[in-house]
Amino acid sequence: MNDFCRRFEMDIAVVLAPMGGGPSTPELTAAVSNAGGLGSLAAAYSGPEKITQDITKIRALTKRPFAVNLFSPAAQEPLRGDVEAVSKFLGNFHQRLGLPAPQLPSSAIEDFDKQVDAICASKPLCVSFTFGLLPPEAMQRFKEVGIFIIGTATTVDEARQLERAGVDAIVAQGGEAGAHRGTFAVPAEQALIGTVALVPQVVDAVRVPVIASGGIMDGRGIMAALALGASAVQMGTAFLAAKEAGTSPAYREALLKAHEDQTTVTRAFSGRMARGIQNEFITTWNESGLTNLSYPWQNAFTQQMRRAASAAKESGLLSLWAGQGVGLIREGSAADLMERWREEIKATRQSLL
Amino acid sequence: MNDFCRRFEMDIAVVLAPMGGGPSTPELTAAVSNAGGLGSLAAAYSGPEKITQDITKIRALTKRPFAVNLFSPAAQEPLRGDVEAVSKFLGNFHQRLGLPAPQLPSSAIEDFDKQVDAICASKPLCVSFTFGLLPPEAMQRFKEVGIFIIGTATTVDEARQLERAGVDAIVAQGGEAGAHRGTFAVPAEQALIGTVALVPQVVDAVRVPVIASGGIMDGRGIMAALALGASAVQMGTAFLAAKEAGTSPAYREALLKAHEDQTTVTRAFSGRMARGIQNEFITTWNESGLTNLSYPWQNAFTQQMRRAASAAKESGLLSLWAGQGVGLIREGSAADLMERWREEIKATRQSLL
Repeated sequence: MNDFCRRFEMDIAVVLAPMGGGPSTPELTAAVSNAGGLGSLAAAYSGPEKITQDITKIRALTKRPFAVNLFSPAAQEPLRGDVEAVSKFLGNFHQRLGLPAPQLPSSAIEDFDKQVDAICASKPLCVSFTFGLLPPEAMQRFKEVGIFIIGTATTVDEARQLERAGVDAIVAQGGEAGAHRGTFAVPAEQALIGTVALVPQVVDAVRVPVIASGGIMDGRGIMAALALGASAVQMGTAFLAAKEAGTSPAYREALLKAHEDQTTVTRAFSGRMARGIQNEFITTWNESGLTNLSYPWQNAFTQQMRRAASAAKESGLLSLWAGQGVGLIREGSAADLMERWREEIKATRQSLL
Repeated sequence: MNDFCRRFEMDIAVVLAPMGGGPSTPELTAAVSNAGGLGSLAAAYSGPEKITQDITKIRALTKRPFAVNLFSPAAQEPLRGDVEAVSKFLGNFHQRLGLPAPQLPSSAIEDFDKQVDAICASKPLCVSFTFGLLPPEAMQRFKEVGIFIIGTATTVDEARQLERAGVDAIVAQGGEAGAHRGTFAVPAEQALIGTVALVPQVVDAVRVPVIASGGIMDGRGIMAALALGASAVQMGTAFLAAKEAGTSPAYREALLKAHEDQTTVTRAFSGRMARGIQNEFITTWNESGLTNLSYPWQNAFTQQMRRAASAAKESGLLSLWAGQGVGLIREGSAADLMERWREEIKATRQSLL
């Protein structure tokens, strides 16, 4: 076991990817930590009260370390784009779902400083973040209360920037990864670098531990990432069908049917590039030729539709985030999945001798 | 060692990627085989006499097994596209290079059946191919003379199709890979699946040995691929700066400067999607909004420009094929590189115990 895993008392080198918008529940976070990994709470879409509540829930379920994940406020853009055109586009789907006309909310995201306040008051052992660098004051505040800080890079240069900014570890997010790209220093299209290529190049460029993410679904993938020089892996899609995940029934069903060549990257749902299963909404959006509103406004604008679609089991209108490893997804409790990976790690190690 | 490596007497699980248009010389092919890997001759752009000559050269340099690579004729399309518009576009570069106006040749590719004749007469131990399935008659002819046949897949479905067609092993080409995509069953955009995600899904789907390719640059990558279930790796970019490679000076220089986020996929040079370092030709082509001629016609049409650009060291007009691992490229003889990987494999194995 390496320093990173030792620090968080992990006996399997698995970090739960923070999966906002439903899947990452306090139950899943605690289950992954209890099974010897490092659970992560997706807190980016939560206000301070919710963050405090969720952390309290996790602590009632586990005595072990876990991480809390935020989005860098540097990624937030002022409202840009043709609200009327996007509204008209969304309106068709609202009608189908029996919703009133789309309304752009006056604020699109939670207040970052209040999120930091809540976290510093609760003092989890680890904070991770994505979408950029954190403001130096936030870095300082986390460090003052002894929190270990993990940033997210999709290129070598981003990893170097994060190290210079003082992070303690770096998630190297390969192009296979499901959901939002963490890219912040180049256009996201330019930073779809496969995990096998990205991880060793990041490992060679920085001194802090590197956590590999993207396309890792089982013990074989975990061992591959360790061979590439990673200290651990971050797995998201592999946990989406776990019993403790908050993944909606329609989303689960789509995941269990999906093949490796059915995901795509899109800005249609949130305004930021993210990987998910190609469905009606993405196809129709691409055909429309529309430009998305800036992030996080597109995200806020499509939220009502996505919630209603989830309730109505209309998977064609959901953001079905998933990585390219989706064909290897398995059901079971987090502990079952991790036990299986543990066995696969042993078998893989044996095969490499 | 596994069956695949044993069959070809390999003591390092490395297949040289066949790199047409210059890099894969008989010298490089023989050097990789002599150093304990499986060399490959890129024969797709060669007529029968050249194939026979090259095989004779390789046999003068090594007694060990090697492979000969072809393109599936199924990928050849009739001429489609606006020849005049593409000619006008290329004309500007021809002028700059002091060439006469572009001329579309009457035939764009060598005769496949004659290539098969030459190979069956020379009987290398192995033939590999990409861009589709082979005609059943060609499969039959190779089998009759005892040649081991390797196909190329970029999705799970393609791997299944190849296995049904009777191949003996499958290269799983991840999205990181440099040069042409082997995709034949879906649009190439849909089949940019990272190696970490693709390899285990292919391994689970077929019974024949799987050779991992895409982004593998050193001993860490080789061990990662074996962990994913591959029997060997195919490495191309990692050999592009080798002493024995026919890589032109301008191309070498561009490779040694390139970063992992500077490659892109394009149809501008050949009409088929391929990954290379983004340069002036690709950028100008994208800005032009033109549609490429069908493959192999676009390839034939840009060939004169690329040859002259190579001689003039105008790397902006060359097809600088490279994978996303390009930042890890090293110089040296093939034997030096492979000796280094052997050491890295040992160190990686040790670190995984």
